[in-house]
Amino acid sequence: MKKIGIVGATGYTGVELLRILASHSEVDVYKVTSRTHAGIRVDAIFPNLRGHYDLTFSNPDDCNLFACDLVFFATPNGIAMQQTQALLDNGVKVIDLAADYRIKNVKVWSQWYGMEHASPHLIEEAVYGLPEINREQIQQARLVANPGCYPTAVSLGLLPLLESNLIKTTGIIADCKSGASGAGRGAAVATLLAEASDNFKAYAVAGHRHLPEITQTLSLATNDAVELTFVPHLLPMIRGIHATLYVELKKDQHQLDLQQFFEERYALEAFVDVMPIESHPETRSVKSSNLCRMAVHRLSDERVVILSVIDNLVKGAAGQAVQNMNLMLNIIENSALQAPAMLP
Amino acid sequence: MKKIGIVGATGYTGVELLRILASHSEVDVYKVTSRTHAGIRVDAIFPNLRGHYDLTFSNPDDCNLFACDLVFFATPNGIAMQQTQALLDNGVKVIDLAADYRIKNVKVWSQWYGMEHASPHLIEEAVYGLPEINREQIQQARLVANPGCYPTAVSLGLLPLLESNLIKTTGIIADCKSGASGAGRGAAVATLLAEASDNFKAYAVAGHRHLPEITQTLSLATNDAVELTFVPHLLPMIRGIHATLYVELKKDQHQLDLQQFFEERYALEAFVDVMPIESHPETRSVKSSNLCRMAVHRLSDERVVILSVIDNLVKGAAGQAVQNMNLMLNIIENSALQAPAMLP
Amino acid sequence: MKKIGIVGATGYTGVELLRILASHSEVDVYKVTSRTHAGIRVDAIFPNLRGHYDLTFSNPDDCNLFACDLVFFATPNGIAMQQTQALLDNGVKVIDLAADYRIKNVKVWSQWYGMEHASPHLIEEAVYGLPEINREQIQQARLVANPGCYPTAVSLGLLPLLESNLIKTTGIIADCKSGASGAGRGAAVATLLAEASDNFKAYAVAGHRHLPEITQTLSLATNDAVELTFVPHLLPMIRGIHATLYVELKKDQHQLDLQQFFEERYALEAFVDVMPIESHPETRSVKSSNLCRMAVHRLSDERVVILSVIDNLVKGAAGQAVQNMNLMLNIIENSALQAPAMLP
Amino acid sequence: MKKIGIVGATGYTGVELLRILASHSEVDVYKVTSRTHAGIRVDAIFPNLRGHYDLTFSNPDDCNLFACDLVFFATPNGIAMQQTQALLDNGVKVIDLAADYRIKNVKVWSQWYGMEHASPHLIEEAVYGLPEINREQIQQARLVANPGCYPTAVSLGLLPLLESNLIKTTGIIADCKSGASGAGRGAAVATLLAEASDNFKAYAVAGHRHLPEITQTLSLATNDAVELTFVPHLLPMIRGIHATLYVELKKDQHQLDLQQFFEERYALEAFVDVMPIESHPETRSVKSSNLCRMAVHRLSDERVVILSVIDNLVKGAAGQAVQNMNLMLNIIENSALQAPAMLP
Repeated sequence: MKKIGIVGATGYTGVELLRILASHSEVDVYKVTSRTHAGIRVDAIFPNLRGHYDLTFSNPDDCNLFACDLVFFATPNGIAMQQTQALLDNGVKVIDLAADYRIKNVKVWSQWYGMEHASPHLIEEAVYGLPEINREQIQQARLVANPGCYPTAVSLGLLPLLESNLIKTTGIIADCKSGASGAGRGAAVATLLAEASDNFKAYAVAGHRHLPEITQTLSLATNDAVELTFVPHLLPMIRGIHATLYVELKKDQHQLDLQQFFEERYALEAFVDVMPIESHPETRSVKSSNLCRMAVHRLSDERVVILSVIDNLVKGAAGQAVQNMNLMLNIIENSALQAPAMLP
Repeated sequence: MKKIGIVGATGYTGVELLRILASHSEVDVYKVTSRTHAGIRVDAIFPNLRGHYDLTFSNPDDCNLFACDLVFFATPNGIAMQQTQALLDNGVKVIDLAADYRIKNVKVWSQWYGMEHASPHLIEEAVYGLPEINREQIQQARLVANPGCYPTAVSLGLLPLLESNLIKTTGIIADCKSGASGAGRGAAVATLLAEASDNFKAYAVAGHRHLPEITQTLSLATNDAVELTFVPHLLPMIRGIHATLYVELKKDQHQLDLQQFFEERYALEAFVDVMPIESHPETRSVKSSNLCRMAVHRLSDERVVILSVIDNLVKGAAGQAVQNMNLMLNIIENSALQAPAMLP
Repeated sequence: MKKIGIVGATGYTGVELLRILASHSEVDVYKVTSRTHAGIRVDAIFPNLRGHYDLTFSNPDDCNLFACDLVFFATPNGIAMQQTQALLDNGVKVIDLAADYRIKNVKVWSQWYGMEHASPHLIEEAVYGLPEINREQIQQARLVANPGCYPTAVSLGLLPLLESNLIKTTGIIADCKSGASGAGRGAAVATLLAEASDNFKAYAVAGHRHLPEITQTLSLATNDAVELTFVPHLLPMIRGIHATLYVELKKDQHQLDLQQFFEERYALEAFVDVMPIESHPETRSVKSSNLCRMAVHRLSDERVVILSVIDNLVKGAAGQAVQNMNLMLNIIENSALQAPAMLP
Repeated sequence: MKKIGIVGATGYTGVELLRILASHSEVDVYKVTSRTHAGIRVDAIFPNLRGHYDLTFSNPDDCNLFACDLVFFATPNGIAMQQTQALLDNGVKVIDLAADYRIKNVKVWSQWYGMEHASPHLIEEAVYGLPEINREQIQQARLVANPGCYPTAVSLGLLPLLESNLIKTTGIIADCKSGASGAGRGAAVATLLAEASDNFKAYAVAGHRHLPEITQTLSLATNDAVELTFVPHLLPMIRGIHATLYVELKKDQHQLDLQQFFEERYALEAFVDVMPIESHPETRSVKSSNLCRMAVHRLSDERVVILSVIDNLVKGAAGQAVQNMNLMLNIIENSALQAPAMLP
């Protein structure tokens, strides 16, 4: 059994990691840390875990994470960058579910995240943990930057077309909608049930931190600067991201069979499901599962709409992190990630 | 036009007072205060009020409320009790939407609310603002204690039977369910959408502050100590209280026509609607309105279930406060309170 | 008092008309008809109306609507087109809340609505009931085609730019999200709470009936063919439409102050609220009100995003119909439409 | 691998059986039938199952279920009673998730379910499938009547006290709340999102079919007639039942340690979790899991409130059915039922 540590396990990505790992037969959660909850039983905070873990939150300062094979950071941005080097030095692999190692350009990172980077020398080494493009590097990696939730849904939907240079790289639009768990488990007026339910709104139209992450992934894929308009919205529900992606095919693609093209691109991917033509993927069809489910609609010779859904806490966070862990620890990739989505 | 002040208008009872008073033709909101939001426009916090008010939150320390005819306290518990005397001394009438003046026994009050009372001498004068039992006193009052939300729904459902000594005064059960707006607009993990939606739970089973308020009202009505079991629950929705009330008729009531009895008790009450026999009142049927809608079910000779619904922010708070204001200022009682509930 | 009839008042637009008209001091609802519910009291179906109407649904065949001053059709598509001529012949004005008279090109209408038009000769006379562009014609009209919900939200957001030829007329994108009441009150699996709540999806990506209606309005405004991509989505909530509109400014508009431009365009419109710069309008800020609230975001010299929200049952249906009625009957335009939105 | 058939798998209990069995390593779903959906792929109706089943709905008339080891009836009431004898005759075990074999008194059954029973001779043989009281009989059974959702939550909460004759058998109150999935997947106005969300109501106060089922279980347990008041309510959410149970201890129980008593009663039960003292179980803490989680509150010497929650589709239907299947097929009882609940 591999030993796993989770730093900062009192948020939604933390409890979701614990939920998924409870069904994993080859790893054992050895330590979970929380500065604020040290000494409290994990299942006192998350009663769904009663009977599954006999664990108490450890104070990160008193807790020997070096005995772990792999440590997840389920922390706010800016924590992993301070602790990763010491873990790596002791032979512990690291997956950061926050954004510390996602952006290769450290100036861009500092600008969007509003802080100095504490370990810029590790950025280059960190592998962006989207297995559908970086599987082999992840298998070799010591440090994986787990992608953001919006970037996962948007990138998977656009990558096939950009990799093959089939669409214009300007004027791409990603109209994205996320459930409220994406805002995290912190107390805040804006995400109270009485504020955010029975309501819908856009936010951060002027600029969202996931924009540079998405454009980095897309630009790398197409070897060209991608100009993307990204508008996130807050859905009155807990889990799920729906990305509605608008692109324009280049002039000479009249004969392209888009459906076949997408199906072939993802034929070997266990966690990307291209639905039949004319489908409308529902967020609930992936709830609690690690799938990205998508559908492609060609409206005219040039206009294409791609619909892409994920569970933001699974393929958009903890599930993808476990997928990366499986790859890094040489475990079968879909271990603990096979259960169907819960519907209804 | 009467001049109205609202102290602490940044919570849900505050915005609801402003919503209702916007349609009131005989009063004018003159000042709204908020220590934390002083200097900010009211409609910047509550965009539904854009176009209805040209008001900025005033610092309560800099704000002359003595020019008002009546002041509402839409504050946390413990504020009104400090400021009421000065307002009364200046001829300003006061309605407290918090609990400061609801409980006649100051020791009981201190025990449940965990503080010393700052103006115990005013408790006796304060009229409990349930017009269905205290209309005439309210009309004469300088100071009204606006009832709690649960107490309004429960008391109106039980009062007819207790006033006439028709039921046993022990073993009464009030199983109550409230929307999340009842918990207020403060940032808190427990009422985040991601925690409280798609979920249901009881809370405070060991004891809730509204219990002594309810038993005080019921015991006064029946001239006997009432033993009530009160269990509140949190509903995954914004507005609405549903009280399911279980009582046992006394032995000799086989011939009582309960339906007719309730209809007659409330025949002259504009804001209590006794539905036809076998009805199940829905919380949405009173959403945004000042009504208490109820139905009476006689299950056997002795077992009776009463279903009572209100909008916790209207008849359970701001609407009832405006009803009391109308009475105190000699305005027609249903002014600004006549619009039908919003359904769906 | 003007006499009003409502045909087919058992759906959501019907009950919403009744809710709004209950507060209208210059009209009286004289007859409501329903073939399926004839003989049943209106408030037995819609308990929120108890105490507001003493009306029973009439069988449309037995019911003399000719005594009315104005009749609303709150019916499915294809009903109003059969009965309008007779009403007009008897001096009764007509507002159709369905789509029968919205599309000027009858062939296009038949193609999208799948039926022959029963009164094509009236299409030309019918005025499209968007007061912000057709106020004077509406005041003179005998027959008004009340706009669809999506077309209202989208058109109001785009009209200022198109009227002044400021944007490219190709590549416009309207990513729209609607609450489930937009699907009507008919029994259907897809809009059950257990199917549609806690879920989000696009629908009708290949083509939605509101597309030709929107392009007709926009093309008329700009005197040019407009190419629009319109993707509707179903929100897990009851009321509200949010349109996220993506347009490209023409090259020479670097100095245009978009905020001022929008504010000036709607300065005299009581029911369009242009929010301050950088705002994100929330659907709940217009819930139960007749407002369209919008915000304009300029992302670059060319890219502009407009956010536009309405309550689909009010400004998107019944409220706009009452606004049109007021204009047609020479009543003050905002009568019965002034109450603030309900928030939270 | 055991061969499993599911009759009528297009409702919520059907899809939930399929979701759970997808993770079961010792059984194989061999046939699923549906008269209305014959010929359609299962994953076309339930996209969450894409990739998990390569199955098409069979017409029940053309489908050889006799090859199965066990058949689930996930049908409306009145179907299983017609087909069970033939299956048993062919050596196929049967679990009915509907109510056909739950009530031992066939007259009572006919009265509540409004039909003649087609196989009354099998009622005696059928074992009531609540493993916590009938485990050994279930292991030997050919035919199991899977309990209703409300009866499971209520019975598990009350059984310990009744088995030991600790409470009065009159005046017991079960105030129960259920998510909308309990109403099934049939098209109906009352459970539309636009009707049932943002709303709460009681229903069937005069009498609900689960009442005789509950009183049968409880009366058997205590060897005395139990008088229960049962009021069900509809929650604005998909899954979950919360039973709030009010009982009165007999006079001589002052020294009873209720917490310990409950913990001991369920110490060996894998699917009943007695929470620590003063807890409030949340429905989400059991969402998607087979657990019944409960807490006991002693309010006074005599008054006790028990809070009991289940997922109505799992421990209240499909999960308990799989638990019964495991017992009947001599498989480890918790197979495929071990995953933690999904939270948030």
